[in-house]
Amino acid sequence: MHQIKVVAFDADDTLWVNESYFRDTEKAFCELLQEYLSLHSLEKELLKTEIENLTLYGYGVKGFVLSMIETALKVSDGTCGTEVIEKILQLGKNLLNEPIQLLPEVEAVLQQLYGKYRLVVATKGDLLDQERKLRKSELTNYFHHIEIMSEKDDANYLKLVKHLDIRPEELVMIGNSLKSDVIPVLNIGGHAIHVPYHITWIHEQIEHTIENERFKTVTQLHEVLSCLT
Amino acid sequence: MHQIKVVAFDADDTLWVNESYFRDTEKAFCELLQEYLSLHSLEKELLKTEIENLTLYGYGVKGFVLSMIETALKVSDGTCGTEVIEKILQLGKNLLNEPIQLLPEVEAVLQQLYGKYRLVVATKGDLLDQERKLRKSELTNYFHHIEIMSEKDDANYLKLVKHLDIRPEELVMIGNSLKSDVIPVLNIGGHAIHVPYHITWIHEQIEHTIENERFKTVTQLHEVLSCLT
Repeated sequence: MHQIKVVAFDADDTLWVNESYFRDTEKAFCELLQEYLSLHSLEKELLKTEIENLTLYGYGVKGFVLSMIETALKVSDGTCGTEVIEKILQLGKNLLNEPIQLLPEVEAVLQQLYGKYRLVVATKGDLLDQERKLRKSELTNYFHHIEIMSEKDDANYLKLVKHLDIRPEELVMIGNSLKSDVIPVLNIGGHAIHVPYHITWIHEQIEHTIENERFKTVTQLHEVLSCLT
Repeated sequence: MHQIKVVAFDADDTLWVNESYFRDTEKAFCELLQEYLSLHSLEKELLKTEIENLTLYGYGVKGFVLSMIETALKVSDGTCGTEVIEKILQLGKNLLNEPIQLLPEVEAVLQQLYGKYRLVVATKGDLLDQERKLRKSELTNYFHHIEIMSEKDDANYLKLVKHLDIRPEELVMIGNSLKSDVIPVLNIGGHAIHVPYHITWIHEQIEHTIENERFKTVTQLHEVLSCLT
C-alpha cells in the first residue's frame, strides 16, 4: 500500500459504537410487542419492513422509527394502542440522542496517521444525524473531508475519488462492513481494510470470502498502521 | 454580476414543486384529526412540533411524518386510534413518491446557462429523497455538482465555495427562500437572486426587506438571464 494518499474511515461501528444502540432499541421495541409475537418473529417482521422501506426511506434512525411503527401496527393488526406508538417515537428520540462512544484505539490511530495522509470519513445514513455524531465525537479536526452518502456503492466511491482528485489505488477504506466498506472500494480499484465489529446488521452481512491483494482483515484497529507502512 | 463563475440553484420550489405537496399532506392530516381541534389550531400544533423537532430530525419528509404522528397523539391525547397513525404513515409514503413537476421556464433557463457557467444544485433536506428527486427531474446532466446540506447557513455555503474552488463573489445563488438561499449567501460575500414561490413554509419566512447591491428579486425565472449578462 505504498501509493496510498487518502485513508478513509467508515464512521458507525468503525469510529464509534452504533449497531449496539440499534440492537438495544430493537430489544425494547420487541418487549413492547411481546404479547403479539415471539422475539424472533418480531425481529424478522421488523427486518422485513425495514428492507421493504429501504429504497423509500434509506438508512438512518428516522426510517428505522417509521419502520418500527409500521411493524407494530402490522403485527398487532392495529390493536397495539397509541401508547406503544408514543413509546416507539421516544425510543427513536433516545437513539438520536445517544452519546458518542469512541471505539478502542480510534484516537491513537488517527493521531498516528494525521499529517502523513489525508484522512476522510465516508459514511452513509442521515445527513444531519451523521454530522451531529461527528461533532459530538470531537474527531472533526482530524479529517480533511467528510462524505455522507445515501448508499455506499461503486458510483458514490468513484465520485469521492474524483472529488479528492486521486486515483482509486491511492485510496484505502477502513471499515466494519464487507458489503459497504470493502467490496465497492475493491470494485473501483481501491484498497480496503476490514475491521470487524462484534455485531453486524443482517442486511450488511455477506456470505462469501474475499480474496484480493488490495484487501486485508485486521482484528484490532491499530493493525492498520502496519498495513500502511 | 460580470465576475460570476458558478450559478447555484435551490431545488425545492425553485426547480420543482415541493411546498404545495407538503401543504396538501398537511391538509389531509388536519382532516384526519378535525374532530379534536380546528384546522387553524391543528396547523399551529403541527408547526410547533416540527420546529421543536428540527434540531433532532432536520428537514425532509421523514421528520415531517414523525412530527405528524407526534402531533396526532398529542392533540387527541392518545385517543386518535392506530388507524390514524397508519394513514399518516401512508401520507408520508405518498409524499415521498410524488412525481416531479418542474416549475415553468426551468429547463429553458438551464439550457441557456449550460456551458456558460458551472451550474450547481444547492439544497437541504434528506439526502436520499433529494437525490431521488433530482434523478426523477431528469435535470442531472445540467449540473456540475450537487450539494445537499443539512442546513443552508453561512458555514455550509463557505464549504461549497471552497469545494468549487471559487471566491464567494463568483457565486450567484438562485432560490425561493430569503432565509436559506439569499441571506447566508450575501453574508459570505456572494450574489443572490430571489425567485419567490407562491407559498413559503412559515419557518422560512422573514420579515425585513433586504437591501444589498449583490441581491436581486425577479418574478419569473427567465429574468435571471438578464441579471447575469
